[in-house]
Amino acid sequence: VTRADTDPAWDSSAAMTRLSLNQATTQRWSVREAVAGCLRAGIPSIGLWRDKVAETGLDEATRLVRESGLHVSSLCRGGMFPAATAEERRTRIEDNLRAIDEAAVLGTDLLVLVCGAAPDRDIDRARAQIEEGIAAILPQAIASGIKLGVEPLHPIYAAERSAIVTLGQALDLIDRLDSPQVGVIIDVYHVWWDPNLYAQIGRATGRILGFHLNDWLVPIIDPLLSRGMMGDGVIEIGRIVRAVEATGYHGPIEVEIFNQEIWDTPGDDVLARIKERFSQL
Amino acid sequence: VTRADTDPAWDSSAAMTRLSLNQATTQRWSVREAVAGCLRAGIPSIGLWRDKVAETGLDEATRLVRESGLHVSSLCRGGMFPAATAEERRTRIEDNLRAIDEAAVLGTDLLVLVCGAAPDRDIDRARAQIEEGIAAILPQAIASGIKLGVEPLHPIYAAERSAIVTLGQALDLIDRLDSPQVGVIIDVYHVWWDPNLYAQIGRATGRILGFHLNDWLVPIIDPLLSRGMMGDGVIEIGRIVRAVEATGYHGPIEVEIFNQEIWDTPGDDVLARIKERFSQL
Repeated sequence: VTRADTDPAWDSSAAMTRLSLNQATTQRWSVREAVAGCLRAGIPSIGLWRDKVAETGLDEATRLVRESGLHVSSLCRGGMFPAATAEERRTRIEDNLRAIDEAAVLGTDLLVLVCGAAPDRDIDRARAQIEEGIAAILPQAIASGIKLGVEPLHPIYAAERSAIVTLGQALDLIDRLDSPQVGVIIDVYHVWWDPNLYAQIGRATGRILGFHLNDWLVPIIDPLLSRGMMGDGVIEIGRIVRAVEATGYHGPIEVEIFNQEIWDTPGDDVLARIKERFSQL
Repeated sequence: VTRADTDPAWDSSAAMTRLSLNQATTQRWSVREAVAGCLRAGIPSIGLWRDKVAETGLDEATRLVRESGLHVSSLCRGGMFPAATAEERRTRIEDNLRAIDEAAVLGTDLLVLVCGAAPDRDIDRARAQIEEGIAAILPQAIASGIKLGVEPLHPIYAAERSAIVTLGQALDLIDRLDSPQVGVIIDVYHVWWDPNLYAQIGRATGRILGFHLNDWLVPIIDPLLSRGMMGDGVIEIGRIVRAVEATGYHGPIEVEIFNQEIWDTPGDDVLARIKERFSQL
């Protein structure tokens, strides 16, 4: 039984127009190769990463995506605001301002924020520094027409990547920032375990800026590279997709998979598998 | 600055009377060796594991702890309620009833529950099966004078060990079970990342049955064995200790560390380190 059998609102061929390849999934591909791969596969959107864009050069990457006609669904990533010194925090903010500029040049309207972790044991201070950091870059985001997507990360990353660990916490933060320029990114890997997930997805109505698919593999071995292809793990992806759809989110759906085995697979095969699994949601 | 300097309510020599060695910390020691180690170190309590008790034999383990005069702070572990078939769930419940009997024989009043994960993708069904399982064993727990400690586990374990992943969720479950025989176990490793932690510790007042210390090491490499000695990681242990104390919990404080390097260290050295770090909280 597929999603299409149970929910007339989900039309998998219509959904295919919303599919986006997040570049993290094809780690060995340059921007040029990923763009060409999307065109061959008929995937209409791409989520770019700053390190890949830097390798290619911002101007050349911009030319490649413009000429391709692909939609750029997001640029990953800004964030990483907390730091031990005021000087280092200023440096992080400057880097985020550059990321906003790069997003605008690349023609996307969304910068994904991985907010950063505590540089010491004080997680509340890290959370305050995250809020200060987003507030500091917000005026330029507004001026540039770039939305800021706060991505809550799985609590496994609380000490190293993001002190923002639940959708509810991200929404509380966004409530306080009080700007339509800031919203959330929902990644099924990061949120699937949350007892409050469906209530918080409902609460996120109108504030969902991006939606990422992958899966949680069992057993977990490497916490960084245990993400899997949709359908290979334990996440109720169809249920989460329906809940996000029900909020009225009809934007891009990025497939973002950090997995060594997938990185070692030829990219065209990975994209074919993504399309197959996506059509079965 | 140690806890004793900042908080007159914390008296580290008085706290030492509450220190308990959870057997998981000294994986290579039998019950006999762990009991002898606690006596040598002057650690007054021990938390036992069922697999270790079974190796020694229940009667012999009981004799060893009784003759030692050690307090048995808990028996680990019951739980693991969700299963694909009704027959398997019944088998799990029978195992929990045996665990209650063993706890009573060993002279502890606390059975720690690691509640179990979904056997399939349906995490809500797993959560319902956990609640049904605890309700099924509750009458015998009451009759035997054994309290049931629901231990929320870090969300990293949601797919493999426990669909109960936050303190708030555990308290919601306990609210519904509505029995003073059921409470929570707070383990700093499992809860430190939670944005609602301190509010939920306050809410747990009167329902905290056990308290476990260890630390979260950075970087995380092995999700099962990355627990560290207090002070070696990033958890604000002193702050959590103070919050738990403030609820009026003055029961045993178990040190439970799953870490291969610690398992490979001579047990007496591990216990000396535990006492040193515990006195510095």
